[in-house]
Amino acid sequence: MKRKVHVQGSRDDIQVPFAEIELSGGNPPVRLYDTSGPLNDPPVGLPPLRAPWIAERGVERTQLYYARQGIVTPEMEFAAIREGVAASVVLEEIAAGRAILPNNVNHPESEPMVIGSRFLVKINANIGTSAVSSGIEEEVAKLTWATKWGADTVMDLSTGKHIHATREAIVRNSPVPIGTVPLYQALEKVGGDPLKLTWEAYRDTIIEQAEQGVDYMTVHAGVLLRYVPLTVGRVTGIVSRGGSIMAAWCLARHEENFLYTHFSELCEIFARYDIAFSLGDGLRPGSIADANDEAQLAELRTLGELTRIAWEHDVQVMIEGPGHVPMHKIKENVDLQKEWCHDAPFYTLGPLTTDVAPAYDHITSAIGAAMIAMYGTAMLCYVTPKEHLGLPNRDDVKAGVIAYKIAAHAADLAKGHPGAQAWDDALSKARFEFRWEDQFNLAMDPDTARSYHDETLPASAAKTAHFCSMCGPKFCSMKISQSLSLEMQAKSAEFVASGGQVYLPVVS
Amino acid sequence: MKRKVHVQGSRDDIQVPFAEIELSGGNPPVRLYDTSGPLNDPPVGLPPLRAPWIAERGVERTQLYYARQGIVTPEMEFAAIREGVAASVVLEEIAAGRAILPNNVNHPESEPMVIGSRFLVKINANIGTSAVSSGIEEEVAKLTWATKWGADTVMDLSTGKHIHATREAIVRNSPVPIGTVPLYQALEKVGGDPLKLTWEAYRDTIIEQAEQGVDYMTVHAGVLLRYVPLTVGRVTGIVSRGGSIMAAWCLARHEENFLYTHFSELCEIFARYDIAFSLGDGLRPGSIADANDEAQLAELRTLGELTRIAWEHDVQVMIEGPGHVPMHKIKENVDLQKEWCHDAPFYTLGPLTTDVAPAYDHITSAIGAAMIAMYGTAMLCYVTPKEHLGLPNRDDVKAGVIAYKIAAHAADLAKGHPGAQAWDDALSKARFEFRWEDQFNLAMDPDTARSYHDETLPASAAKTAHFCSMCGPKFCSMKISQSLSLEMQAKSAEFVASGGQVYLPVVS
Repeated sequence: MKRKVHVQGSRDDIQVPFAEIELSGGNPPVRLYDTSGPLNDPPVGLPPLRAPWIAERGVERTQLYYARQGIVTPEMEFAAIREGVAASVVLEEIAAGRAILPNNVNHPESEPMVIGSRFLVKINANIGTSAVSSGIEEEVAKLTWATKWGADTVMDLSTGKHIHATREAIVRNSPVPIGTVPLYQALEKVGGDPLKLTWEAYRDTIIEQAEQGVDYMTVHAGVLLRYVPLTVGRVTGIVSRGGSIMAAWCLARHEENFLYTHFSELCEIFARYDIAFSLGDGLRPGSIADANDEAQLAELRTLGELTRIAWEHDVQVMIEGPGHVPMHKIKENVDLQKEWCHDAPFYTLGPLTTDVAPAYDHITSAIGAAMIAMYGTAMLCYVTPKEHLGLPNRDDVKAGVIAYKIAAHAADLAKGHPGAQAWDDALSKARFEFRWEDQFNLAMDPDTARSYHDETLPASAAKTAHFCSMCGPKFCSMKISQSLSLEMQAKSAEFVASGGQVYLPVVS
Repeated sequence: MKRKVHVQGSRDDIQVPFAEIELSGGNPPVRLYDTSGPLNDPPVGLPPLRAPWIAERGVERTQLYYARQGIVTPEMEFAAIREGVAASVVLEEIAAGRAILPNNVNHPESEPMVIGSRFLVKINANIGTSAVSSGIEEEVAKLTWATKWGADTVMDLSTGKHIHATREAIVRNSPVPIGTVPLYQALEKVGGDPLKLTWEAYRDTIIEQAEQGVDYMTVHAGVLLRYVPLTVGRVTGIVSRGGSIMAAWCLARHEENFLYTHFSELCEIFARYDIAFSLGDGLRPGSIADANDEAQLAELRTLGELTRIAWEHDVQVMIEGPGHVPMHKIKENVDLQKEWCHDAPFYTLGPLTTDVAPAYDHITSAIGAAMIAMYGTAMLCYVTPKEHLGLPNRDDVKAGVIAYKIAAHAADLAKGHPGAQAWDDALSKARFEFRWEDQFNLAMDPDTARSYHDETLPASAAKTAHFCSMCGPKFCSMKISQSLSLEMQAKSAEFVASGGQVYLPVVS
């Protein structure tokens, strides 16, 4: 069975959670990274785990600042224990800008985690109300559901009414970093008309969200006036909501994007709370036809320029990426992002590898996500089966999270992340030895694995049977293969007992 | 809406089916490859489309023989029209052994298709009864269901009772080539004990199935006695049913695999019916830990040797591949297969890119399948959500087929297959223009796409709305982007109307 265990760090209050799967037959337990948090009753709010660490430091600086000073914070140590690496590795990666540890001082409930290509690939789940659907309780339930299945961060993309209250409920109950796109609320504040947006309205929104504890914010500061015409010939124009809003603003007023012109002021605010930038790709491609085009790449260069500015303010940065990209153009995205954005962590939406399968875009995009993560993307934003069709419900959230945990873990294996394969080996060994319960418990989704097995062989005896309904008892390859192995071992013992002599060719 | 259309070849009786999707707003229809067949009432059997072509030739030879003679058969022309290429391309690829056109003379109901890396990536769906589940009618329904969703070939892997009758019903009702693993039935004939298997029992089974019209057969002739000990140190031993049966036979009798020693006789039988070999990878890895190991690669070399022998008999060949392979080891599989098996088409099961997600192995393997197809695999054997857990039902068959159609199409895009992207472009254009019905009709699974959209916005007015429930009307990026585009066009017209003068730098 699965149980939560904690590993203590250098001080009593560094208690790092893991999910431990106990196995039968004397097999050692398997420890997995765990995002589920304390699993309190959501309305109560979670305990402020990091409050003492923040209080001890007095004047708050960013994790990037501390890393540059060579100071290992409790947050860094916590994240390092989760990753199974030395704290110095976390420190070095953050100091170099290759990783971020998003943790607003006003979100002390969060369990520290690190996003960077040297660490386990992370996934984000988007939730949030829209004008035509969802309520606060439903969204908090989606949050808890998403982290139960393995979401490493959650973005609250609420639009419509009750944005503030929804976010408050989400942050207070989230064991993982929370991201937002502040532009959505800023737009609500000016009555929904992009042309009425102002820097002041935006800044006030940022501060409001910063005070609540948002850990990272998507800022579409790279959508420059001169890039907007580059999207005219596209099949799907601008598909980022934030991108389209800023493009409309720029074009209507014929002024430069205020997020770009006020970027240093943004950095000052972000530094005060240790909020990380997620530099938005407002011009990301929304179709195979538009992948890696001039508009997308022009914006990416600008994001690299903004990264430097954020770093001058000790503000942590990650870079958002596409979108829709055919497989053969995926690697180029990572290569250019690394080069132009100075190795800041990449955070991509999918990408979807074809446009033709709405209702299955968790799959079209899991393919692209696994590949882009293998090439070095640090965090993957999930896509649910409802993408392009509607707002995800609870089942869709789970389907999206599981598809992306698969993509992330496949990439961890491909990157040779230390320890990643131990999980696969434990499950495969259980499978080969017909330890069905162990196999279910080790599965990414034990409930579904168990229920599928029950469908054809419901008897509890079948849980210890040396076959399944796929082949039946007579044709089971694993059963035959096990007997073979025993037979060969017997032959081998016989051979050794008989003296163990073989004829070796004599060579001079 | 979707309707079936036929394109006529050089003679009246070459009528090649396509699915044509009619679009609204004056947009040209989109034609897609169609595997669904005449859609007759299954129990009746399908019309013997190829009977006159076979009769005209009199003494039957294989398509490989004709291709080598430079003769374009009606089958080759039919397949070429489906692929949108010249018949000479199909002829050349078959002649060189780089493609196969599986078509037993006793399965005249099949619509000719070609499997090779220069053509559209194909997918296979496995169906079949097992000792503990399924009946004949259910399996024929699965066949029709699988080809409706796009299966290019179907393998009948029935074990248990009624193998002959099940296969007869399947072949008579199949518009696509049917594959089998004759070893399963041979084993039934000798009472289920691998040690009682004989060449004679196997040969009789082959002939029985050949007479029924099986188009390609998996033959585990590469599992040699000396390779069996190479599997002892594996995490999951031998996971191929056929492989484990032959390994048990070899080891128990300490004789060489009779499929290997009688391979030329097999070729002679196959040539008489134009059955293609699917050379089985009996030692394929069943876990990440076992990928690309010595046992697997030793067998692959032997399959290359057998390919040459089959070609000497004018028998068509494809090579089966893994299995479970982490992403970074996928390309090596294709590279070695091409080199050692002389560019014979590769036909892989997935591969699964991680072992940890039973119940989601259609996804773990769609990732690997898309990648291996991009690198040159010609056909992908699907994996359903029930893999490792039980026998797939109707829903699982559909889930497996759709996941694999996605993988195959993503690979077609990545390989730049002519015409592949037209489908994506048509759907994305419909999406951007809010032609919801066109978007649904163009989707790989229109039913599910439509029902997901209905869940949150059921009103039929929403089908023409310029937004969906994801963002609501105010935040729709596509809507804003469309207005932007119109605005820029207006500006451009204004500029042209005003004289269209720009200040150009004077250069000498």
